[in-house]
Amino acid sequence: MTRVLIVGTGLIGTSIALALRRHGVGVALADHDPDAVRAARRRGAGQAWRPGSPVDLAVVAVPPEHVAAQIHHLQRVGAARAYTDVASVKQAVIGAAGRLGCDMSTYIPSHPMAGRERRGPDAAAEDLFRGRPWALCPLPQAAAPARAAVLDLIGLCGAHPVELPAADHDQAVACVSHAPHVASSAVAARLAEAPAQALALAGTGVRDVTRVAGGDPALWLDILTANAAPVAEVLEAMAADLAATASALRGLPAGDRAAAETVAALLRRGAAGRHRIAQAGREGA
Amino acid sequence: MTRVLIVGTGLIGTSIALALRRHGVGVALADHDPDAVRAARRRGAGQAWRPGSPVDLAVVAVPPEHVAAQIHHLQRVGAARAYTDVASVKQAVIGAAGRLGCDMSTYIPSHPMAGRERRGPDAAAEDLFRGRPWALCPLPQAAAPARAAVLDLIGLCGAHPVELPAADHDQAVACVSHAPHVASSAVAARLAEAPAQALALAGTGVRDVTRVAGGDPALWLDILTANAAPVAEVLEAMAADLAATASALRGLPAGDRAAAETVAALLRRGAAGRHRIAQAGREGA
Repeated sequence: MTRVLIVGTGLIGTSIALALRRHGVGVALADHDPDAVRAARRRGAGQAWRPGSPVDLAVVAVPPEHVAAQIHHLQRVGAARAYTDVASVKQAVIGAAGRLGCDMSTYIPSHPMAGRERRGPDAAAEDLFRGRPWALCPLPQAAAPARAAVLDLIGLCGAHPVELPAADHDQAVACVSHAPHVASSAVAARLAEAPAQALALAGTGVRDVTRVAGGDPALWLDILTANAAPVAEVLEAMAADLAATASALRGLPAGDRAAAETVAALLRRGAAGRHRIAQAGREGA
Repeated sequence: MTRVLIVGTGLIGTSIALALRRHGVGVALADHDPDAVRAARRRGAGQAWRPGSPVDLAVVAVPPEHVAAQIHHLQRVGAARAYTDVASVKQAVIGAAGRLGCDMSTYIPSHPMAGRERRGPDAAAEDLFRGRPWALCPLPQAAAPARAAVLDLIGLCGAHPVELPAADHDQAVACVSHAPHVASSAVAARLAEAPAQALALAGTGVRDVTRVAGGDPALWLDILTANAAPVAEVLEAMAADLAATASALRGLPAGDRAAAETVAALLRRGAAGRHRIAQAGREGA
């Protein structure tokens, strides 16, 4: 892989560009905002794109709702031999690409599982993806060279590939990312109107739980909207658990054994899930 | 302050003992389990307690349901000039102490806002409380010297005191600690039965959200039980937010503006709450 085009020089696009530059890959940069390209160039992320002979891979790092149109445009002008995107949802993007008539043999949808609270090229870091999972969701008609190009990209970024169908991806990220974000927001929302004295008692636990709630609300509305049904399903299960626990706690002062068991069961399931994800982290590291 | 008695040489009691030893304070150790005292002594936390002349302060670091009886016993034998406890709920403990006839002029209920996932004297650390808030909830009849002794203890542990009524304390910790723990458990519970592929996609965000869910379920059942009503109230509000968000997401694919606004509003409230607690941390540090 010698030449890559990055379309969208925000946090993710610029971080990918920096990782590729470190390996000596030629990087061309494009963005609808010329200031974003300039900022990425100042970071040493590459040069402004000048259409010419096709690059090895085009990485479309724009908001989910614009991915399909961008892929379609790039394929029409023959910008690259292979294409990928980095949107956090896959079924909606693939559906839109199909409706526009994109060539799904050279387009390999993907999603790096990394991010930061800050956005934009100035927040980019070449090690943003190091040691992180990076999902890829090739369709059955995917061409082997295109899939190989995306695997190359993932390797050059220091991430490890997780290949799975788009529907499984969307359910997985609802469970491990999108719904946890909403739960974090629901915890943090209580703190928005709590007395100052209550905040003074906050320890590290609630800071951990609410960290992701600091993410950009507009960006997250887009993400949740694009993965609405899988996220709703997980949120409904969480809401039911919290409501059942609240109801059991209301019954506890009377010494209700079944109520105590309801509360204990959620705590045990939570500890089991936490243990499992902590183990998954160790295996993945 | 020259001599302190620690009753209950678990994580919290032994950590307090280590912090006091570092300042040259004489520490006497007691626990219903002789092994726990031996383990704390091996850590250099002090010597086994031998009843004699009263110490300056007795710190009762036993599970909430045993605090009142322990304070009552120590006061009856005249073990100390002042008494405190470290239970994570205050109204229930104070109520029980009142019913037993404890002297509330020398007993100043308190609660250090610090902990670890591991328990026991071997997990203890002298810096466990450094820079952390430590609530104290003196009753109106509290004697000034007893209150001063607890403030001394807090200072020697490197923590900063937050004085507030017990009822306010219990509502505050429901909001900043107990309900966030249950929310973390509800997120982690989803991971207990998720496909391995989903766990493979987990990033740092969900690991942050679920960290506290790794806490001991039996210990947390005790904590939640002792603060049942305030926790239930916060959980009901969270469950309502999650259910409303799920319902709005179900309505989104049809392009429902009001539904999108429901989702966006929670994300914005969450970001505001997160900003507020991040600021509180900076001011407290």
